[in-house]
Amino acid sequence: MIEPAPLTVAVFQCQACDEDATARLDRLNAAARQGAEWGARLLVTPEVFVSGYGGMPDRIHARAEPANGPSAQRAAAIAREHGIAIVLGYPEAADGIVYNAALCIGPDGATLGNHRKLGLSGTDEQATYARGDAVTVFELEGHRIGVLICYDVEFPELARMGTLAGATTFAVPTALVSRWPVVAQKMIPTRALENGVFIAYANYTGSEDGLEYLGASCIVDPTGEDRTRAHREEAVIVATIEPSAVAAARATLPYLADRLTLPQS
Amino acid sequence: MIEPAPLTVAVFQCQACDEDATARLDRLNAAARQGAEWGARLLVTPEVFVSGYGGMPDRIHARAEPANGPSAQRAAAIAREHGIAIVLGYPEAADGIVYNAALCIGPDGATLGNHRKLGLSGTDEQATYARGDAVTVFELEGHRIGVLICYDVEFPELARMGTLAGATTFAVPTALVSRWPVVAQKMIPTRALENGVFIAYANYTGSEDGLEYLGASCIVDPTGEDRTRAHREEAVIVATIEPSAVAAARATLPYLADRLTLPQS
Repeated sequence: MIEPAPLTVAVFQCQACDEDATARLDRLNAAARQGAEWGARLLVTPEVFVSGYGGMPDRIHARAEPANGPSAQRAAAIAREHGIAIVLGYPEAADGIVYNAALCIGPDGATLGNHRKLGLSGTDEQATYARGDAVTVFELEGHRIGVLICYDVEFPELARMGTLAGATTFAVPTALVSRWPVVAQKMIPTRALENGVFIAYANYTGSEDGLEYLGASCIVDPTGEDRTRAHREEAVIVATIEPSAVAAARATLPYLADRLTLPQS
Repeated sequence: MIEPAPLTVAVFQCQACDEDATARLDRLNAAARQGAEWGARLLVTPEVFVSGYGGMPDRIHARAEPANGPSAQRAAAIAREHGIAIVLGYPEAADGIVYNAALCIGPDGATLGNHRKLGLSGTDEQATYARGDAVTVFELEGHRIGVLICYDVEFPELARMGTLAGATTFAVPTALVSRWPVVAQKMIPTRALENGVFIAYANYTGSEDGLEYLGASCIVDPTGEDRTRAHREEAVIVATIEPSAVAAARATLPYLADRLTLPQS
């Protein structure tokens, strides 16, 4: 098998705010331009970026759009303009149901996948969203990229499922509040290490609707080390994921092979 | 259900050395006395403490003993003398087979369980030991204590299996070399957080047989925070595990309940 070329990935750590989709996609356009200037071929936004995370359920339901709705179309145009794929968090309206979703848009604007959040955290999310039913993995320039949203990645089972489905990188839109640095600082690196994958973890910063976000967005490598990590400022951060690093990590710590010798639950 | 009383736990971070079982059990006796003086009701040793980790396979095979062998009997006497339970790493000889095991000895010297390592890491371990076939959970003063050895705990599946079998604390004898601080500092807290359990992680420090150990033994709580952590010195460290902390963590982050709503692999 020919190894794909290294892929530079950007994470947009966005200031939380109550703006409409038009203003938010203006921010996305600026982040995509910045990422592309720095060589990124993929940009990951925070969770439900198109609407903002707060305002459950009413504001979210009012702002939900279909997977081919106006915000998705504008994001596709942004992807094309800058030649960069986008994993775009948005509230998806589908047949009268709303999902917490992430649309995977290719650099040509084509839809490569659509992930619906599996783990709904707390009563607000459970009152706002229906659950998805599968881990999502899409392909970009020969790289298999899994998508998990926020609470999804906190379950080792789901990252494992995506890894066994071939993912070597996970794009994770999130909305992690400041109470949980342990998730951003310890759990995300652990998920990367135990699966031998890169993780691009895109969080909000600042405060909105009574929630204070942690920032601490990051791209971690398959040894569990940070390649880049934001602090509390709004930021675009970039790092390059190399298939060789995945292969090296999995050769050094063969968790995926050795797990086959364990008793199965 | 009546909650058990809090339980103080000690971890013996031992200097790696090539001593015989008699000298090593003298060290165990001193650590047990120290732990008991500080109120501990359970002491956890590093991996294959009775033999030392190195010298695979010949020295290990030469030092392997049955689960009721002389070292186990002396450890039982130490437990009785100080009124402290012991999770004792040792190479177990059973019907001509050697396991990397941990004997769980009650404060009255009775055998409460015997865990055989499931995940054998690398060719040396695989040439030395046979694999166990189950996660082990034993009961001590109303607490359900899971036992995982070193590489075992690096698989999220195994800690999850033990948790689902009722463990609220894991005792983990280990032999983690200095190359892997990410395991001690990030993965162990993550295992605790994602399962809502305490983990007592007992490592070696110093060097022996060409291996340099990390130290960094710890007792972490169900929020993923360190209760206590050793540096590079030989040390007995103690912390108190409270069922109320387990209950609080699982109420705040209901991973175990919410995982039931996820797609199953």
